[in-house]
This record gives sequence, C-alpha cells and structure tokens, in this order.
Amino acid sequence: MARVLESVRRLLVGRPYDTERLTSRPLGRLTALPVFSANAWSSVAYAPDEILLTLALGGTAALTMGPGIGMAVVAVMLLIVLSYRVSIRAHPEGGDYAISSANLGPWAGVTVAAAMMLDFVFTVAVSMAAMAHYLVAVIPALAGAETWVAVAGVGLLAVANIRGAGRGRLTPALLAFLFLALLFSMIVAGIVQDQIGALEPATSAAVEPMPNPAFADGLGQVALAVLALRAFSSGSALATGVEVPASNVAAMAKPRIKTAQFVMLVMGLIAAASTLGVMYLANRTGVVFVLDPTELQGAGGGPVPEDYVQNPVVAQLANAIFGHGGFFAVALILSMAALLVMAGHSAFKNFPELASRLAKDSYLPRQLLTRGDRLGYTNGVVLLTLAALILILAFRAQTALLVQLYVIGVFLSFTVSQLGMIRHWSRELAHTPGSRARQAVRTRRVVNLVGFVVTALVALVVLITRFGQGAWVALLAIAAMVFIMSRIREHYDAVAAELTLTPAEDARALPSRVHAVILVLSVQRPTLRALAYARASRPSSLEAVMVDLDKESTRAHLEAWDRLDLPVPVTVLASPYREIAEPLIRHLRALRRQSPRDLVVVYIPEYVVGGGWKSLLHNRTNKRIKERLHREPGVMVASVPWQLSGSAHPVKNRLPGPVESPVQGTGRSAD
Amino acid sequence: MARVLESVRRLLVGRPYDTERLTSRPLGRLTALPVFSANAWSSVAYAPDEILLTLALGGTAALTMGPGIGMAVVAVMLLIVLSYRVSIRAHPEGGDYAISSANLGPWAGVTVAAAMMLDFVFTVAVSMAAMAHYLVAVIPALAGAETWVAVAGVGLLAVANIRGAGRGRLTPALLAFLFLALLFSMIVAGIVQDQIGALEPATSAAVEPMPNPAFADGLGQVALAVLALRAFSSGSALATGVEVPASNVAAMAKPRIKTAQFVMLVMGLIAAASTLGVMYLANRTGVVFVLDPTELQGAGGGPVPEDYVQNPVVAQLANAIFGHGGFFAVALILSMAALLVMAGHSAFKNFPELASRLAKDSYLPRQLLTRGDRLGYTNGVVLLTLAALILILAFRAQTALLVQLYVIGVFLSFTVSQLGMIRHWSRELAHTPGSRARQAVRTRRVVNLVGFVVTALVALVVLITRFGQGAWVALLAIAAMVFIMSRIREHYDAVAAELTLTPAEDARALPSRVHAVILVLSVQRPTLRALAYARASRPSSLEAVMVDLDKESTRAHLEAWDRLDLPVPVTVLASPYREIAEPLIRHLRALRRQSPRDLVVVYIPEYVVGGGWKSLLHNRTNKRIKERLHREPGVMVASVPWQLSGSAHPVKNRLPGPVESPVQGTGRSAD
Repeated sequence: MARVLESVRRLLVGRPYDTERLTSRPLGRLTALPVFSANAWSSVAYAPDEILLTLALGGTAALTMGPGIGMAVVAVMLLIVLSYRVSIRAHPEGGDYAISSANLGPWAGVTVAAAMMLDFVFTVAVSMAAMAHYLVAVIPALAGAETWVAVAGVGLLAVANIRGAGRGRLTPALLAFLFLALLFSMIVAGIVQDQIGALEPATSAAVEPMPNPAFADGLGQVALAVLALRAFSSGSALATGVEVPASNVAAMAKPRIKTAQFVMLVMGLIAAASTLGVMYLANRTGVVFVLDPTELQGAGGGPVPEDYVQNPVVAQLANAIFGHGGFFAVALILSMAALLVMAGHSAFKNFPELASRLAKDSYLPRQLLTRGDRLGYTNGVVLLTLAALILILAFRAQTALLVQLYVIGVFLSFTVSQLGMIRHWSRELAHTPGSRARQAVRTRRVVNLVGFVVTALVALVVLITRFGQGAWVALLAIAAMVFIMSRIREHYDAVAAELTLTPAEDARALPSRVHAVILVLSVQRPTLRALAYARASRPSSLEAVMVDLDKESTRAHLEAWDRLDLPVPVTVLASPYREIAEPLIRHLRALRRQSPRDLVVVYIPEYVVGGGWKSLLHNRTNKRIKERLHREPGVMVASVPWQLSGSAHPVKNRLPGPVESPVQGTGRSAD
Repeated sequence: MARVLESVRRLLVGRPYDTERLTSRPLGRLTALPVFSANAWSSVAYAPDEILLTLALGGTAALTMGPGIGMAVVAVMLLIVLSYRVSIRAHPEGGDYAISSANLGPWAGVTVAAAMMLDFVFTVAVSMAAMAHYLVAVIPALAGAETWVAVAGVGLLAVANIRGAGRGRLTPALLAFLFLALLFSMIVAGIVQDQIGALEPATSAAVEPMPNPAFADGLGQVALAVLALRAFSSGSALATGVEVPASNVAAMAKPRIKTAQFVMLVMGLIAAASTLGVMYLANRTGVVFVLDPTELQGAGGGPVPEDYVQNPVVAQLANAIFGHGGFFAVALILSMAALLVMAGHSAFKNFPELASRLAKDSYLPRQLLTRGDRLGYTNGVVLLTLAALILILAFRAQTALLVQLYVIGVFLSFTVSQLGMIRHWSRELAHTPGSRARQAVRTRRVVNLVGFVVTALVALVVLITRFGQGAWVALLAIAAMVFIMSRIREHYDAVAAELTLTPAEDARALPSRVHAVILVLSVQRPTLRALAYARASRPSSLEAVMVDLDKESTRAHLEAWDRLDLPVPVTVLASPYREIAEPLIRHLRALRRQSPRDLVVVYIPEYVVGGGWKSLLHNRTNKRIKERLHREPGVMVASVPWQLSGSAHPVKNRLPGPVESPVQGTGRSAD
C-alpha cells in the first residue's frame, strides 16, 4: 500500500532534486518585466468588467461614467506604483511583510502577512476563475462548467509547483509579450476603426441591464455618487499584483534596485495604457456586462436569446474588433488566459515563500519551513491549493464576487506598508546630515505619504461600499489568521525559552546511575531481545516488571520466566483496575523517589508489522504506555523492535556511492 | 481537552471497578428461568405478527391458516428445545461455538460464531425496534418516531452495559413474571370471553389487506402452499433466543445441568403456550397485520382512517380483551416492552463474551479480549452498539424486515450445532461399553438427529422463500465475517510461530558491544539530556550525528556543539534530498556491517507538549524517523523525553496505599 502510494507520488512529482539545483541566474530587465508583471497586467482581465457591472446597476445611462472611473482607478494604480518604487530603495529585500515588521513592529507585520496570504489565495482563485471564463469565450461548449475548469487550473498549477516545474523564463516572457502585442494591436485597431466609423458594436450592445429597483426613479446625485464609488472600489482590483516586482528584487540582475524600479514603472505604464484603452473601447462598442446575465433584457425590453453567454470585456472587444472567432481574436483571448495562469503561478511561488518566512519567524508551523523533494515548499503549495479550491467552489468561480473580497486584503497591506515607509523615512531623516540629502528623504516621504493617503482612502471606500457584500468576511479571516499566528509564535517562544541553553549550564553533568526496567507483557522472543539489549547496556540495576492483569496468565508468565533461569529479578505489580501504565508509573515514581538523581530506562518490546490492517492488531497497548511514560521526568523509553516477517523496508536506492561525509570528525573518543 | 473527555467518560461510565467484583452467585431455577428466557419469550412480540403479515398477502381468506402455522412453528421450537436439553448434557460449558468447534473443527466453529455474532446484533435491533412499536401502542404521539425510540433504546443499553449495570436478578425476574401473569390473564380472559360470546373484535378487524396482484385470481393450491411456507419461515422467529439457557449453564446453580434442563423445558412450554394463545385469539378477534399499513382498505373496500396506526398483535389483543387503553392493557404492553429490553440486554451480555472468547482463540483482535473499567467488555459493547444502530437506521426500525434477516443466521447456527452433536454422540458411542448406556447415547443421538433434520429443513425453507428478501445479505455478511476471522487467526498464528521461544534458544546470549548514536537536530537542552543519558549508559562507542539539511544551520549547530566542548565526536551526514531518515539509516547500516553482532542504540530527543493543537507543531519529524528506525534489525530506539511545561499528567489518585505487591522477588541480583 505504502509502496503503491509512493509510486503514484513519484509519477506525479518526479524524482527528487538535489539541493544544488536551487541556485539560479538573476533576471535582467527584459525577462523580469514580463515575469513579475503578469500578475498586474492580468488584472485587465477582470477590473474593467467589475467597473461596468457595478455601473450597470444604474442602468445603461450610468455606463457612460465608465471611462472616468477607469481613469481614477488608473491614477490610483500609478500612485501605488510610484510609492513602491520609493519603497524598493529602502527595502530592496522587499515585501510588505518585511517593511511593516521592520518599521511598525511585529503586530503590523503579522497583520500584513495575513492579508498577503489571503491575497495570494485570492490571486489564484480569481485568476483561475477568470481564465475559465476566457476559455469559455473560445470554447462555448465549456459554458456552465467554469467551476470545474477553474478547479482543473488550480490542480495543474499545484502539480506543476510541487514538481518544481515552470522555472523557465523564456516561455513566460514570450507569452506575456505576445499578449501585449495582441492587446495593443486590438486597442490601436479599435481606435482607428472608431475614427473611420468602422467600429462594430459588441455582441452585448444588443442587450440591456434590467433597471435595478433601487435606482428605479432615475439616478439622483447621491445615488450616482454612491454608484461611482462602488464602481471605483471594485475597479481598484486593477492595482492587485503591482507589488510583485517590489517583493522580488532579490531575483533581479544588478543593479537590483534600478532594475526593479524600471520594471515597476514600465509595468505600471503598460497596465495604465491597456486599461484606459479597454475602458475607452468598451464605451465605444457599447459593451454591457452584468453580475447576473439572467437579468439582462433585449434592447427593446424583450427577452435575451436563450443561448446568450456573457463573455468577459476583453473577449467581447477582441471579437468586435478582430471579427467574431477570427484568428487574432482567439489568439488574444487565449493569451489572456495564459497570462492569468502566469498570475496564478506567481502566487504559487510567492505564497509558500512567505509561509516559509513566517515559519522561520515562528508564526506558522515548522512544516512550512522546509523544501520538498523537488525543492518547492510542498506543504505551502498544498495549503494554497486547498484554500483556493475552497474559494472557487464556494463562489462557483464567479470572478466578480471573488474580486470584491480580494480588493480589501490587497489595499489593507498596501496601506500598512506605506505607513511603515513613512515611519522609515522619518527615522532616516533624523540620521541624515546635509540639507540636500535631507530634501531627497523628505521627497520620498511625501511620495509614500501620498501613497498612504490614497491607499487608505481606497481601503476605506472599499470597506464602506463593500462591507455588506463580504468585505467583513475578508476582515474576519485576516483577524483569525493574525490570532492563530500570534498564538503559534507565543508557543514557539515559550518552548525556545525553555529549551535554550544558558551559559551557566553544565553540559557534561551525567545521571549518577541507571536503573533498567523491562516491561514483560508476555514471555516471547521480543521480550528476551529487550532483556538482552537491556543487559548489554550494563545498568546499575535491572528488573523485570509484570503487571498482574489476570491471575492465570501472570502465573503462566512467571513459570515461563523461571524456566528460562535468567539472572533478573521479577516484580509483579498489582492492577486492580486492569491497567498497565498506572501501576508501572507508580513503581517508577517509587524508584525515582529513592534516588532522584538516577535515570530510569524502561525497555519495551515492540512488534513491527508489515502495515495495513495488520498493524491494527498489535501495539495499541504499547503505544499508550509509551505516550504515558514520556510524561514522566527522569524516565527514558527504549523501544526494542521485533521485525515480523514482511515488515522489511528497503532503503530507496538513489545514490550509487556512500553518502556519508564526515565533515568534522573531532577525533575525540567516547568516554 | 483530554481531561474534559475523561470527566465526561467518568460521568457516563462511573468510577472503575476492582476485578474482585467479578465473582457472582450462581442463579437458581426461579431466577435463571426468567433471566435466560427473556430472549425466547420476547419472540411472541413479533413472531405472530410475522405469520399474519405474510398470510395477509393472500387476502383475508389466507388468514385462517394462522393457527395451523402457529402450531407448526411451536412444534419446531419445542423440538429445538428438546435437542438443546440433550446438548447441554454433553457440553455444559455451552454455546454453539464450543459445540461446533469441538466436534466439527475450527471452520464450523468460526461459521457458527459468525452467525451467532450476527444474531446478537439482530437480537438487539429487532428487540429495540419491536419495543419502539409497543411503546407507540401506548403513547401514540411517538408514532413516526419509532426509529429514534429504537436508537435511544440501543444507546441506553450500551451505556448501561459499559457501566456494568443491570447485573441485578430480582428486577428482571419480577418483570418477566409480571409479563407472564398479564399475558396468561389476557389469554385466559380472551378464551372465556370467546366462549361466552363477549370477545370484542380487534381494531384492525375493521380493515382489510388489499388483494395482492400475485394472488388476484384466487389462491391456487401451489400459491397457497408457498404462502404457508413463507409464513412458516417468518414465524420461525419464535425459536430465536431458545439457545440462551444452553449457553449460560456456567452461571446456574448446581446441579448445573439439571437446572439448565429444567429452565429450557419450562421456557419452551411457556413460549409454546403463549404463542398458541396469541395465535388463537388473533384469529378469533380478526386481527389484521400487514407489512405496509398504507396498503390497507376499509372492510367494504373504502379508505382507511387517516390516523390509523397499526399496533403489534399482542398490543391489539390486549386492547381488545382488557378494553382499549385500560389499565391492564397498558400494563401488559409496557411489560412486553420491558421484556424486549431484557432480550436486548441479554445480547449485550452474550455478544461481548463471545467476542472475547473469539479474541482469545485469535479470531478477533486482542482489543476485544479484556474487560474495561467497569468489568464489561467495553470494546465488544461498542462494536455491538454500532452494528445494531446501523441495522436500525438502515431498516428504519421496521421489525418485519429485520426479522426476515434474523431467522437465517439463527437457524444456520442451530443446524451446525445439531450436526456437531450427532458427531459427538457417534464418537461417544464408540467408547461406551454396556448396552444400556449405549442405548441412552443412541436415544440422545436420535433427538439431535431429529433436531438437525428439522432445523436444516427450516433453514432451507427460510433460505429458499426469503432469498430474494435479503437472506443473501445475511449469508454474505456471515461469509465475510468468516473470511475476516480466518485471516486474523492466520496472522496471529504466523506471529506466534515467529515469536514463541524454542527450547534450544539461548535466552542468555547478549550482543557483544553497544554503539550509541545521538541524533542531533538542534543543540538545545533536550539534545544534551539525550547525550547525558546516552553517556550514562556507558556504550562501547558514542557519536553524535547531524544531518546536513541546510548548510547554514548545520554550521551554526556545529559551532554550538564545539562551544560545549563535549567529549563526543560528530558525524555530519550529507542529505542532498533534504531527508533525515534515509541518510541516518545508511549510516547505521554501515555501522552494522562492520560489526553485525553489536547493538546500535539511536537516542532521539523528544518534546512532550501539553496536547491539543500544540502537538501538531512538534515531533512530526521524530515520529517518522522512529517508525522508520523500527524497521531496521539490530537497532534500538531510545526516546529521551523533554517535558515542556504544561505537559505534566498526574497519576489518577484512586488508592490510598502503595499498589506494588512483589509476588515473587527471586532475589537474584542483576549481573
């Protein structure tokens, strides 16, 4: 059974990688840009949709606000990019977690870390959900199965990341540039068509959102403002992922900071241009996009065709401009899907790294710290996979709903990180001599201050306008994660305090004598082996202990023992309540009371069974006794295994030669 | 957490009992009769119902066969009683398992044991389901909730039996006699009323079974015969439980065999009289009982009243004869329910005893062998409870369906047991001198032969007429249990063969030298304690082993180790694939190759955490390493525990004085 599982695992995961493989070449500007921008650029796949679907609540008229809100969102995104360019200078090791812990203390760090972990989960869920909808735009037969397409996407990313695949740079870079080429061709072609009056209307221009009852009496000024704010808060999803280059400065080519700043700026400008282009064209082609396509009506108020499928905005534009189902349209949509997969992949890289870092800082279990067979942080990948699958299944891969939860965590970490940077520059100012240098620091502080104000405002707007739609769930999840992480840290700290050696301690102190006790539950070969092992270690005293569970069998065991004629005295412990551990521990405590500085070693014979159902038939008692004995101070438990036939386990044969490398044989002999 | 669970357990189960409490007074005739007859007598609660509901398929006309079939069933039951009276003489230690194993070999024994275990499960399920229906007859508000009443009944029996309660004799004896008094009063009153023409018709006399399409053309001779056979096979449920006194001879007062034979005979006669009385009165009062009450119609063919509830036959008779809802009627119905609870209770006593016996014979896991805190076989009780609950829930407490599965197992064990007895008498005949003694043995053999033929015929009839209605499920379950039990036995036999000492073995041989290896995963207090313990046991050689998972931390550990200035050499093992166990085992194997006759002891420092979620944060690695090391021959694992604060576990304070009783201190000193 274990071997079958192992084979399946090998098939999926592949053979283990040597740690040496981990070193990698740094990324230059032209590779770093597409690799680390995928996350930010892919936001154009859903951010315009979010704006339009929120505005659709106000009816067709409200849709005219689209380009304006697009510009506001782009402005916010660019401001954040500028702020991070400044942050990189001070914290090239990167990451909002590092910035916040260093400047605002552990609580801020943990809060940001919790928000970021949640963000990575949402990045995967949103990217794969959006990817599924883009695929449906090309393969209509998949309509209705979006959830399962997204689930399959997560599964593939998980396996790829456990295998440690996808470390190539050329393919992602080429894919991202292909996407950009197609997207900007479309934008330029669309603008030209618009100028010459040849721009076709989008498919969805033929339908209309049903008037929302809340806005039935036409839109008052207040209602209009609220709607604009809500559209703005949803559209802020555009800014998700812009922090990725700032967190990966270490992977870039020298001069690292310059490279990273270049990547950030170009990334931001490209994202801005593509979003503005898409929003403009969506307006000109009359794209209609709503949360629930069943609430659409024909332009005249009649019903919508039964087979109407609502495609994402970029897919609608591609079809309108390049011709429905045309080669370029399909190519653009597929490259958009590929970019979304890259965005998900980047989260799969960053989440386990953050988790490992948090584990190193004792905020998460140590299991997340180490790399697996293929050098990925397997446990972190599994954790992220499960969380993303839960989100996708819970929201049935509805991108719009997922994005509304996504934004809150993203802007929370932006805000805290910017606050940390303000603190950083203030501190630096105190140590900076010379008015020119001080002025430079002051300028940077102003940039981060603007970033802070803007991100805080956006966070506030999102929180207020989206609180009822689930923002509270995201906040609650972050709070819960902060609580759990701080409890874990507390525990590890307490343990470390207990375990760390103090200089005064004498590492050479030994227990004065060793008392060996052999637990005899039956007089069989394993017991005799335990006895032989105990005797071989020459203890100061040695006794066999039987527990009298049943007079008859105790007598039989005593007789068998006597027949062996061994030089070891037997003590029989009474057990009126038919327990083994309790009388044994009383006996050991009595021994310890007589000589508290001595060591007591309990030898327990143990069967090793082949595994599977057979292991249920053995050792249950021993396991309980051992667990109980472990809680006794001054008592050591020596398990003497007896391998039953069929229990052998060959060492995996990977290396031809010996693997021992006595790095340091200090040459001192044992005393 | 563990302590909370412990408190809940104590509350439900009570404080542990001393083994001394187990001895009990034997039961005399007047207490043994009601205690061991409850199971058989309680069959009158459902056997007549089974006969009538089967006949009802043939329409009202077929119901006239009721008394005749009742007589046939009673005759079979009495024949079985007579056979067992003879069996008792030869096997007073009792039980069909013992009889079958002793005379027909282990396969027959295991088959009978499987059938019996299934029977006990059905006894509980059927009794509790029937009990629920009787309660509904008194408390109509419970109608529809029969399943949950039955489930509650099983739960109460389980708790009572884990608590070891219900060992009183007076209450059950009085309850059983009360039931008999009421039942026979009813029968006599009914017959008198019938003679003077004052017998009221039963409530159900006003309804009629719907004509079954299979018998729509009137009943031909063949159809009638088939129906009679099916009614007979269902009615054979009357014989369930008659073997109970034969299995409990050991609990009876001396002369045991005489007492048991008396109990069997009187039990059989009482069961016969009550069944015949009930069948006669059911016929005279026109009781109608069908499988599915919704398929009833009014006497004229009109609809049945909406609130019509179909009560069991005895309840209907009690209401007709004592007056509906009258004091005596209610008392009789409640005492019937009480008797059913006693029947279930007897299965709760017998099933775990049989399971313990099978565990002793290595056919079931050892966990079923030992008695719990309150001297009951707790694991067996839990197993029975779960199985009975599954049956009740699967069949929604429909007594009729359960009984049809019940009968097959019962008659299978009867048949095999009778066959065993024939074999027994034949063997005894070969060793019996003297013609009178030989004649007596021959007579007994004839009785068991008749028993065998009758039970085999009934088993065959049941199997043929009920195969489609689920008899195959029961057979399959028995076959599966036989398979599992024989596999378990095979395994235990193989293990025993491997572990048993041969006389030639030298129990005094010792490994020549001891090599100690300390696994160093961190240089902290637990590691130093492990080292101190290892040094205290003065091994022939001693080395510390580090596994190089990560160059940086390995270097840090080596430096920390050097600072301690310990007289122990360190070996660092390379681990290109970041594993701990594999390189360690290669190292140990190399050690063992150098000196195969030596013992290698691996010291592993282990944290003991308070429990709960915190234990998830530690020791995962250690556990895996230990499991892996256990599979290496010649390697002993010594876990050196380090108790973190909060892990202390006080010894339960039950006994005031010391509990050690050095029964045998052989006085030899350790070498």
